[in-house]
Amino acid sequence: MSFPTVEITRRVEFSAAHRLQNPDLSEAENRRLYGPCYDHHGHNYALEVTVRGEVPPETGMVMDLNRLAMLLDEEVLSAVDHKHLNHDVPFLEGLIPTAEVVAVALWERLQPRIEEFEGCRLDRIRLFESRENFVDYRGPAT
Amino acid sequence: MSFPTVEITRRVEFSAAHRLQNPDLSEAENRRLYGPCYDHHGHNYALEVTVRGEVPPETGMVMDLNRLAMLLDEEVLSAVDHKHLNHDVPFLEGLIPTAEVVAVALWERLQPRIEEFEGCRLDRIRLFESRENFVDYRGPAT
Amino acid sequence: MSFPTVEITRRVEFSAAHRLQNPDLSEAENRRLYGPCYDHHGHNYALEVTVRGEVPPETGMVMDLNRLAMLLDEEVLSAVDHKHLNHDVPFLEGLIPTAEVVAVALWERLQPRIEEFEGCRLDRIRLFESRENFVDYRGPAT
Amino acid sequence: MSFPTVEITRRVEFSAAHRLQNPDLSEAENRRLYGPCYDHHGHNYALEVTVRGEVPPETGMVMDLNRLAMLLDEEVLSAVDHKHLNHDVPFLEGLIPTAEVVAVALWERLQPRIEEFEGCRLDRIRLFESRENFVDYRGPAT
Amino acid sequence: MSFPTVEITRRVEFSAAHRLQNPDLSEAENRRLYGPCYDHHGHNYALEVTVRGEVPPETGMVMDLNRLAMLLDEEVLSAVDHKHLNHDVPFLEGLIPTAEVVAVALWERLQPRIEEFEGCRLDRIRLFESRENFVDYRGPAT
Amino acid sequence: MSFPTVEITRRVEFSAAHRLQNPDLSEAENRRLYGPCYDHHGHNYALEVTVRGEVPPETGMVMDLNRLAMLLDEEVLSAVDHKHLNHDVPFLEGLIPTAEVVAVALWERLQPRIEEFEGCRLDRIRLFESRENFVDYRGPAT
Repeated sequence: MSFPTVEITRRVEFSAAHRLQNPDLSEAENRRLYGPCYDHHGHNYALEVTVRGEVPPETGMVMDLNRLAMLLDEEVLSAVDHKHLNHDVPFLEGLIPTAEVVAVALWERLQPRIEEFEGCRLDRIRLFESRENFVDYRGPAT
Repeated sequence: MSFPTVEITRRVEFSAAHRLQNPDLSEAENRRLYGPCYDHHGHNYALEVTVRGEVPPETGMVMDLNRLAMLLDEEVLSAVDHKHLNHDVPFLEGLIPTAEVVAVALWERLQPRIEEFEGCRLDRIRLFESRENFVDYRGPAT
Repeated sequence: MSFPTVEITRRVEFSAAHRLQNPDLSEAENRRLYGPCYDHHGHNYALEVTVRGEVPPETGMVMDLNRLAMLLDEEVLSAVDHKHLNHDVPFLEGLIPTAEVVAVALWERLQPRIEEFEGCRLDRIRLFESRENFVDYRGPAT
Repeated sequence: MSFPTVEITRRVEFSAAHRLQNPDLSEAENRRLYGPCYDHHGHNYALEVTVRGEVPPETGMVMDLNRLAMLLDEEVLSAVDHKHLNHDVPFLEGLIPTAEVVAVALWERLQPRIEEFEGCRLDRIRLFESRENFVDYRGPAT
Repeated sequence: MSFPTVEITRRVEFSAAHRLQNPDLSEAENRRLYGPCYDHHGHNYALEVTVRGEVPPETGMVMDLNRLAMLLDEEVLSAVDHKHLNHDVPFLEGLIPTAEVVAVALWERLQPRIEEFEGCRLDRIRLFESRENFVDYRGPAT
Repeated sequence: MSFPTVEITRRVEFSAAHRLQNPDLSEAENRRLYGPCYDHHGHNYALEVTVRGEVPPETGMVMDLNRLAMLLDEEVLSAVDHKHLNHDVPFLEGLIPTAEVVAVALWERLQPRIEEFEGCRLDRIRLFESRENFVDYRGPAT
C-alpha cells in the first residue's frame, strides 16, 4: 500500500558577496565573459530546497519541517550567510561561484543528508540571485 | 490535428487557523512531532491550481478563467477562508491539516470538477503556508 | 553639533490565529460587526518597527540592528508566533485582537525597551494582517 | 564526459494593453466568452524564460546571462513593452492575445535564437498577466 | 477622553489601459514629453487607501473594513478595473491619466464617502503603476 | 493659484558587496559592534527616491519620470551597481557603508540634481538592504 507522494519546499535567504573570475583567463577575457559580474558585488540569495516523499496519514508530513530547517541552518546558512563566496566557503574553494555552480555544490552537500530521512529524496534545488535571475538543478542525469 | 498544450495557473489566497495534532498521540509526543505547530496558529494561505489543456485558436484559452475562478470560490474559498481547518471544514474532518494533507484533499475535491471542462485536466496543486513553506501535489501515481 | 537623523525599520513575521468577538455583544451583533472575522482564522502577520535616531559617523548606525532583532524575538515573537491571539498572549488578555489593538499593544510593549537605547525613540509600528490590510500607529497624541 | 545540466531563468517585465475579442463572434458572444476581458485593459506582464544546458567548469555558466538579457530586449521588450498587443505587435497580428497565445508566440520567436547558443535549448516560457494568473508553455509535443 | 488614533490601509488591485497624451500638443511634443508612455499600454495598478481615526475599545476598529472594501468596489473597482482610463471612466474625462492625476481624482471621489463614517478621515491615497513607480496624495494643502 | 502637490517615487535595484568595519577599532571591537556584518557580504539593494511637487494639468506630472530614471542611472546605478561599497565608490570613500550612511550620501548626491527640475524637491530616500531591513532619510533638520 502506498500513500500520496508530495513535494515539500523550504525557502531560506542569505546575503553574500561574490565576483565571477576564471583565474586562467586574462582580465580582458574575464571582463568579456562576465561583464559587470567580474567586479565584487553581492546578493540577497534565496534558496528553495524541494524534498519528495510519501505522506503517511498518522503524521501528515513528508518530513519534519523543523528538522529540515535545522539541517539548512547547519549545512547552508552557517557556511554562506554574510560571507564572500570566493574566499570564505570551504566547499566552494576553487570553483567560480556562479548561481549554477553554487546550486550544484549545494545539491551535493544536501543530497546525502536528505536521504537520511526515511523515504525522502532531494528533488530540486532552486537558487535565486535576484527576482530576475534564478537556476534549477535536479541532480545528475540518471 | 492538435493545438499547443499550455498550462494555466490561477492563484487564490485565504486566511485560516489550524494546529497539528494527532489524537492518538500524547501531548508530549505531539509536541515532539510538531513543535510550535502543535499550538493553534494561522496563515494567509495561497493556493495555485494548474490546469493543462490544448489552446484552440478560436478562443485562445485552455479554459474560461472566470469559470475557474468561480469554481475555486465554490469549492475552496467558501469552505476554508476565515475558518479553523481542524474544526470547520467537512472535507478535512478526521485529518491532520498539514499543508501536505490539505493539498491532497483539495486535489480530490477539484479534480472531478476540472475534468468537466472539455479537454482539461488538473496538473498540479501548489499550497503555500507562507513564502517559506509550500507543497506540490500532482495526483496519485499512475 | 548634530548628526543626520535617520529612521531604521526592522520587519519580522509571525503566524497566529485570532477571531474578532466582543463578549458583551450577542452572536448576531458580533456577526454583523465583524462579518467573516468573527470565525476563528489566522494570518501570516508582518510587523515593521521603525526607530528614529541620529547616526554618529564612528558607528554609522542609529542602533545595533542585531540587538533590535533580539529585542523583537524576546518581546514579540516569543509571545505571539504560533499562538492564538485570543487565548495565549498575556498582554492581549481582555482585548479584541484587531490589527489596530495589537499594534497599540505592541507599541506599549516596545516603546520603553527602545528608549533604553541612547538617543533612540520608537517612531512607528506597522502591522500587516495581509498584503491587503495593514495599520500604522505612531504613539499617543502629544 | 558530461557536465551537470542546469536550467537558468531570466525574468523581465513589460507593460502592455490588450483586449480579448474574436472578430468572428458577435459582441454578445465575445462578452459571454471573455467577460470583463472583452474591454480594453492592461497588465504589468512578467515573462520568465528558462534555458537548459550543461555547465562547463571553466565558465560556470549555461550561457552568458548578459547576452540572454540583450536577446530578450531585442526580441521581446522592444516589440511589446508600452504597446497595445491587439494593434502594435506584428508577430501577434491576427491572433487573440490571451496569455496562452502570447506565450506560444514568444516561444516560437525565442526558440531559434536560443538554439544559436551552443548546447542550449529553450525549456519553458512562463508568462504572468498578474500574480493571480499565469501560463506555462514547454513547446510542441515531441 | 480620547482613544488611540490609528491609520488603517486597504489595498486593492485593478488592471487598466491608458496612454499619456495632451490633445493640445503635437504628436512630436507628446512623444518628447511622455516618451514610450505616449503609446497605448497598461498596468496592474495597486491602490492603497489610508483612513485615520480613533479606536474605541468596544469595537477595536477605526472603521468596518468590510464596509471600506465594499465602498472601494463601488467607487473605484467598478469604474476602472478592466477599462481604458482615457475612454471608459466618466470621472477621468478630459484629464491626462497619469498616476498623479488618477490619484487626485480618486481622492476627490473617496474623501466625502470616507467622511460619512463617524470620526474617520481620508489620510492618504497611494497609487502604484508598478513596483517601480508610485505616487502619494494627501489632499489639498490646508 | 496652485495645483495639487503630489509625491512621486521611483524604485531602482542594485547589487553590491559591503562589510561594516571601523578602521579605528580592533577586530574584536568591530566584531562586537557589527556581528556577522563585519564579514564581506552583499545585498540586492532597493532604493526608493521620492520627489514632491505640484501637478500642472497640462502635463499631469510632477516631473518627467524618464528623466528621473536617467538621473538615477547616472548618479546612482553607474556608481554602485555591481560594486564593492567599501572600495569602489568615490562618494563613499572613508565612510562605513551602513544603510544609514549610504542613504545620507545618496541624498546629498541627488538633492541638488532634483532641485534643477522646476518646482521639485527631494522628499525622502528609502534604502532597503533586504525586505527585513530598510532606512529612511528626509534630509537635514531645518
